[in-house]
Amino acid sequence: MPTFWCSCRAHSDTLDSSLTPGEEMNGSGNLMDFLDEPFPDVGTYEDFHTIDWLREKSRDTDRHRKITSKSKESIWEFVKSLLDAWSGWVVMLLIGLLSGTLAGVIDLAVDWMTDLKEGVCLSAFWYSHEQCCWTSNETTFDNRDKCPQWQTWSELMTGHTQGAGGYLLNYFLYIVWALFFSFLAVSLVRVFAPYACGSGIPEIKTILSGFIIRGYLGKWTLLIKTVTLVLAVSSGLSLGKEGPLVHVACCCGNLFCSLFSKYSKNEGKRREVLSAAAAAGVSVAFGAPIGGVLFSLEEVSYYFPLKTLWRSFFAALVAAFTLRSINPFGNSRLVLFYVEYHTPWYMAELVPFILLGVFGGLWGTLFIRGNIAWCRRRKTTQLGKYPVLEVIVVTGITAILAFPNPYTRRSTSELISELFNDCGALESSQLCDYVNDPNMTRPLDDIPDRPAGPGVYTALWQLALALIFKIIITIFTFGMKIPSGLFIPSMAVGAIAGRIVGIAVEQMAYHHHDWIIFKNWCRPGADCVTPGLYAMVGAAACLGGVTRMTVSLVVIMFELTGGLEYIVPLMAAAVTSKWVADAFGKEGIYEAHIQLNGYPFLDVKDEFTHRTLATDVMRPRRGEPPLAVLTQDSTTVEDVEALIKETDYNGFPVVVSRESERLIGFVQRRDLILAIKNARQKQDGVVSNSVVYFTEDAPQLPASNPQPLKLRRILNLSPFTVTDHTPMETVVDIFRKLGLRQCLVTRSGRLLGIITKKDVLRHMAQMMNQDPESIMFN
Amino acid sequence: MPTFWCSCRAHSDTLDSSLTPGEEMNGSGNLMDFLDEPFPDVGTYEDFHTIDWLREKSRDTDRHRKITSKSKESIWEFVKSLLDAWSGWVVMLLIGLLSGTLAGVIDLAVDWMTDLKEGVCLSAFWYSHEQCCWTSNETTFDNRDKCPQWQTWSELMTGHTQGAGGYLLNYFLYIVWALFFSFLAVSLVRVFAPYACGSGIPEIKTILSGFIIRGYLGKWTLLIKTVTLVLAVSSGLSLGKEGPLVHVACCCGNLFCSLFSKYSKNEGKRREVLSAAAAAGVSVAFGAPIGGVLFSLEEVSYYFPLKTLWRSFFAALVAAFTLRSINPFGNSRLVLFYVEYHTPWYMAELVPFILLGVFGGLWGTLFIRGNIAWCRRRKTTQLGKYPVLEVIVVTGITAILAFPNPYTRRSTSELISELFNDCGALESSQLCDYVNDPNMTRPLDDIPDRPAGPGVYTALWQLALALIFKIIITIFTFGMKIPSGLFIPSMAVGAIAGRIVGIAVEQMAYHHHDWIIFKNWCRPGADCVTPGLYAMVGAAACLGGVTRMTVSLVVIMFELTGGLEYIVPLMAAAVTSKWVADAFGKEGIYEAHIQLNGYPFLDVKDEFTHRTLATDVMRPRRGEPPLAVLTQDSTTVEDVEALIKETDYNGFPVVVSRESERLIGFVQRRDLILAIKNARQKQDGVVSNSVVYFTEDAPQLPASNPQPLKLRRILNLSPFTVTDHTPMETVVDIFRKLGLRQCLVTRSGRLLGIITKKDVLRHMAQMMNQDPESIMFN
Repeated sequence: MPTFWCSCRAHSDTLDSSLTPGEEMNGSGNLMDFLDEPFPDVGTYEDFHTIDWLREKSRDTDRHRKITSKSKESIWEFVKSLLDAWSGWVVMLLIGLLSGTLAGVIDLAVDWMTDLKEGVCLSAFWYSHEQCCWTSNETTFDNRDKCPQWQTWSELMTGHTQGAGGYLLNYFLYIVWALFFSFLAVSLVRVFAPYACGSGIPEIKTILSGFIIRGYLGKWTLLIKTVTLVLAVSSGLSLGKEGPLVHVACCCGNLFCSLFSKYSKNEGKRREVLSAAAAAGVSVAFGAPIGGVLFSLEEVSYYFPLKTLWRSFFAALVAAFTLRSINPFGNSRLVLFYVEYHTPWYMAELVPFILLGVFGGLWGTLFIRGNIAWCRRRKTTQLGKYPVLEVIVVTGITAILAFPNPYTRRSTSELISELFNDCGALESSQLCDYVNDPNMTRPLDDIPDRPAGPGVYTALWQLALALIFKIIITIFTFGMKIPSGLFIPSMAVGAIAGRIVGIAVEQMAYHHHDWIIFKNWCRPGADCVTPGLYAMVGAAACLGGVTRMTVSLVVIMFELTGGLEYIVPLMAAAVTSKWVADAFGKEGIYEAHIQLNGYPFLDVKDEFTHRTLATDVMRPRRGEPPLAVLTQDSTTVEDVEALIKETDYNGFPVVVSRESERLIGFVQRRDLILAIKNARQKQDGVVSNSVVYFTEDAPQLPASNPQPLKLRRILNLSPFTVTDHTPMETVVDIFRKLGLRQCLVTRSGRLLGIITKKDVLRHMAQMMNQDPESIMFN
Repeated sequence: MPTFWCSCRAHSDTLDSSLTPGEEMNGSGNLMDFLDEPFPDVGTYEDFHTIDWLREKSRDTDRHRKITSKSKESIWEFVKSLLDAWSGWVVMLLIGLLSGTLAGVIDLAVDWMTDLKEGVCLSAFWYSHEQCCWTSNETTFDNRDKCPQWQTWSELMTGHTQGAGGYLLNYFLYIVWALFFSFLAVSLVRVFAPYACGSGIPEIKTILSGFIIRGYLGKWTLLIKTVTLVLAVSSGLSLGKEGPLVHVACCCGNLFCSLFSKYSKNEGKRREVLSAAAAAGVSVAFGAPIGGVLFSLEEVSYYFPLKTLWRSFFAALVAAFTLRSINPFGNSRLVLFYVEYHTPWYMAELVPFILLGVFGGLWGTLFIRGNIAWCRRRKTTQLGKYPVLEVIVVTGITAILAFPNPYTRRSTSELISELFNDCGALESSQLCDYVNDPNMTRPLDDIPDRPAGPGVYTALWQLALALIFKIIITIFTFGMKIPSGLFIPSMAVGAIAGRIVGIAVEQMAYHHHDWIIFKNWCRPGADCVTPGLYAMVGAAACLGGVTRMTVSLVVIMFELTGGLEYIVPLMAAAVTSKWVADAFGKEGIYEAHIQLNGYPFLDVKDEFTHRTLATDVMRPRRGEPPLAVLTQDSTTVEDVEALIKETDYNGFPVVVSRESERLIGFVQRRDLILAIKNARQKQDGVVSNSVVYFTEDAPQLPASNPQPLKLRRILNLSPFTVTDHTPMETVVDIFRKLGLRQCLVTRSGRLLGIITKKDVLRHMAQMMNQDPESIMFN
């Protein structure tokens, strides 16, 4: 098992010249008939290799053509072609159903296990606190959280509900449970599925861009990630389940791909399914189907045709609907944090919203820099050798610091939910402890601004402590060897900051009605500031700062909260946050982790603006030995075998003659090996000094000469070429848009060299003054 | 002025080989310094020409590089570079502000003028009916529509409110006003801005795909389209303002592009702005900013980088916000048809929803086929010669048939709004005339199912008549020589059908509670069916059938109505509608119109699956004269001039020699002409028999020979090449993704031919058994 730091740094030197064996002749469609899947393993890639998008697409078109032409032959073939056409939708349906179900199960399990740290339900131990008291008849409305069936550990063991002893016992057991959960999680990950750690989104981005990481989306990973995700979230660590849910959904997608050869045998088509699965993952993580599709489009996917958009939406919707049917939150709403505010927002409030945006941007920068520095240290120092210990220590610290503060003790989603909430008349939360006006005779819904009571002030400093705690601990938590998402912790940071600002503005408005800014929109006795809205805006700003999502962020936020009316505040904060964060560094956390781990990811967002030419990047460089080429009609089998032995290139250009260097095609190493082996075994007269012909017809040779070996059928007659004067920005664009793996460089029809995807990535890193070796497997 | 049938069939033979003069050397970036904008007009395209995306991108990178390197020189340059970086956002802000304002003005004007057909406000003639009675003190709640200030024409003229005479007078004046408005509209379009007709979306799609249609987005078009849109909508024709608003917003975008050389001088960058403007257009048309962005992404745009996504969203939001500030609907909501339903939907209701989807798909097919057949007839027969008469006749028929039916007499948006509405207790509409249970003691909001009263039955047959009328008249209306959108008419058809189905299901459920399907979810006395929801679903289905929008459609629908909870019904109907419609033909109405008008549009949605190769498509074909080429060092000025005279190709490949045919580059016709002219004027010794050199160094010639002419600097050294064996599916993909205009075909380094975008389009049409000549300018 490779050393794996929530990253797949594994085999080395496999990316080099990134051509795998088993290439078919991309593009020589009319020759395909002769060569109907001639060797086993054709069309598969090795682990840690890059796929060739153009070739995958062309293979799918061939497959499609075959099915279409066959479908006219018989009714059975016609039915088969219909099934094939519908298989995409079937896969989407299955993904939606399974990921929705898994998300529901995870939600229920997390709820129960989180509460298990504090106590147990006597009437039915598998009930969470809320479910326990919900089913109890003795629960009153005022004391929704109290019921005799639910007992804390100290109550259960000592019979006392109050007192220092009980508190300490609960404290101790809280820590023990947390340590137990996290130990279990990290052990499972370590032993059974190292790929199950982290959020998974950087790796999924890389996989979707056309890289093969075998097992990353396997059944085993699916199982372990689901289980350990529950444990990790329940342990009370500062992490969320959103990123890992995307990974889980992608595993489901991969699983169902194997049911249909259309998807399992074509890496390009498989990635279309995975893109849709990612959308389904976000959809169930937040109950936001549209946000999920946009997230997949904006953040995760590389190749996202319109057909995929449509199917993603379907998968996301089925998933959300399945989740709603399971109804883990008990409110039969899709949305996670449903809000209903009673007052509109005012133009002047844009100022604090924008300030929250600035805060979000700063937080994003701080988090990314801090987290990357810590992860680098983990990779390069002794620290990385003790992943289990690290998780235990962080969990211990988290639990010790979290328990005393009511805002960190509970689960982060509950915290966010409370912070988003508007203070209605019936709200019993400490945050809603306002001094009530005894003369108030209004209806319950319409609550004017009031001075804050002591509860609010207590809440304020507790929230401030929680903010500092969350900011620091999240930096160290993300990237540990357990499943960990960062959406929820980021949102929590923003929501806390936002609520604090919101209460401050509210109190300012109450006490200073006469200030010019408040005069117009905030008359005495009117309800004019909604602190919950500030929390929502702050959450969006912080999430935006970390991930640099834009449209999908805003859509997720309003799907999450049901607040379509607050799009302008959300947008203002998101824009500001992105601008501020971008000023300190263009990469979001996912790109930063991709770079840290050196995945071969050609980002569509980076613009390449340097003035280099193809000739500066191609190999062989000046001084290097010339390119290993084959000639079309003068190489012997012996020569070819020697070349294969001496070099480790994955393919060779074929030229007319060494003198003219006119390119005629490109042949894959693996195809060559298989073809020669095949010929030596089956074809009489092919010996070591047989001449290999790549021409259309081999000349008639005298009988004394050995039998020639004709290999035109394994030759790719349409290799991609650029001239040596082509600017690298164009070459980069071509590699990105066409998903190439290699490109030959010519000048006036003469072959000069080759550029592989790895060369492009290395060159881009050099130009950006990064260490080119660090960003690559090598 | 070209003959223009809401299509830009104009100049002929300009697309041929679609290379324009004025090409710079795409890609020879490091030579650019010598040639700093050497001739005027470099970098502009001629009308009806295709742009080269790669080249535009490369030019923008050059510009950007220049600014970045200059910005280090002085503070002023640094400020300039900042301004340049921010200009994109400024343009977006301006587009949002202007298109929001225009949309608000249009809404207000349409409101007023629509009501003007029926009567006038005495207290202030510029008030619409609603505004008039809103400001009146004498309006009672029950008779919201009646107030003494508002008088119908018959009241004003004869003093009678009732009676056949008054009715006939109103009828007559309604028709006269309608004819007057439409005559004015068609005359303005015909005289001042022929490009202002139609919805504009097919043309905008074509423009965004990289085609130049000068004046299509000009100031004049903007002005006339805005005015005539008001007139056309007010005339009561079965058309909407949504498509034209997209056109108006794109005109705004183009207008503001001219403020910044970054956008005005680069056709690629300009298209990014236009994509965002299209989003802003939909945003104000429906008050749906997110739907607008998705519409632009899914339906309109060709090249949509993530940066554009973000900016589009900003523009869409500013536009929606501006519109909300103007508040033309008087409800300070962004949404056009706000709905609030009191009951959830049930699984069993999916059956009627899916049936509505089938209806929508059938309607889409019928509409597209009927409309295209009619438009073709208009183009090919005498009918096309009388556009004004056609508009007058259609308006007359519409007005005559529409007035007697209350559901067609009012504006279509009002109709849709009423159909979407749930019947609350206070609803006075005929559609809500249910028989009330005298024993009912419930709160007003919770209304159980009731038997339909006579009003509902009257409404039903009126709606049925309205449905037939709308279906037929819309087919003939769309494509006339006035601004016309089809969103609103399509939605109206669906909403009527949906409401009818909804009432049917509701009454069935009321009268047959004991049927198995109703038993579980529809107990007597409970409110279980919401006919308004059926109308909404029907509207989505019909709109989807016509446009084939998917995700954007659902998003627009729920932004339009605020109904986030109804995403599953909407989705089910939209999916069904698309499947049904696709079964009859893959194209939506916009693609059908693009094809009808022969725009050179390379659709990203079509898959090319035929087995042809580049060699089958390239020119010269077998039997044609060889390709016109230049040699690098053996052509004289005279030869070049002769070649320019004899051929009309827009560019020539340059080869090493006629014998070897090794390609070294590509030179533009216009550059050649300008360079030779320049040299003859300024360079001594360049005469007709001077040799033209494209090599790096011209050899030292004896003094007796004429001075050589060195033209390497105008040579594009990185022309795009493919081999003759490249399958056409790959070539099509390359053209689409890289936005090429031409591509050279080689075999073993020898130049064989050329493929232009036009050749690709013609070949695709041939392969799809269409008449290749009809889909092209020629």
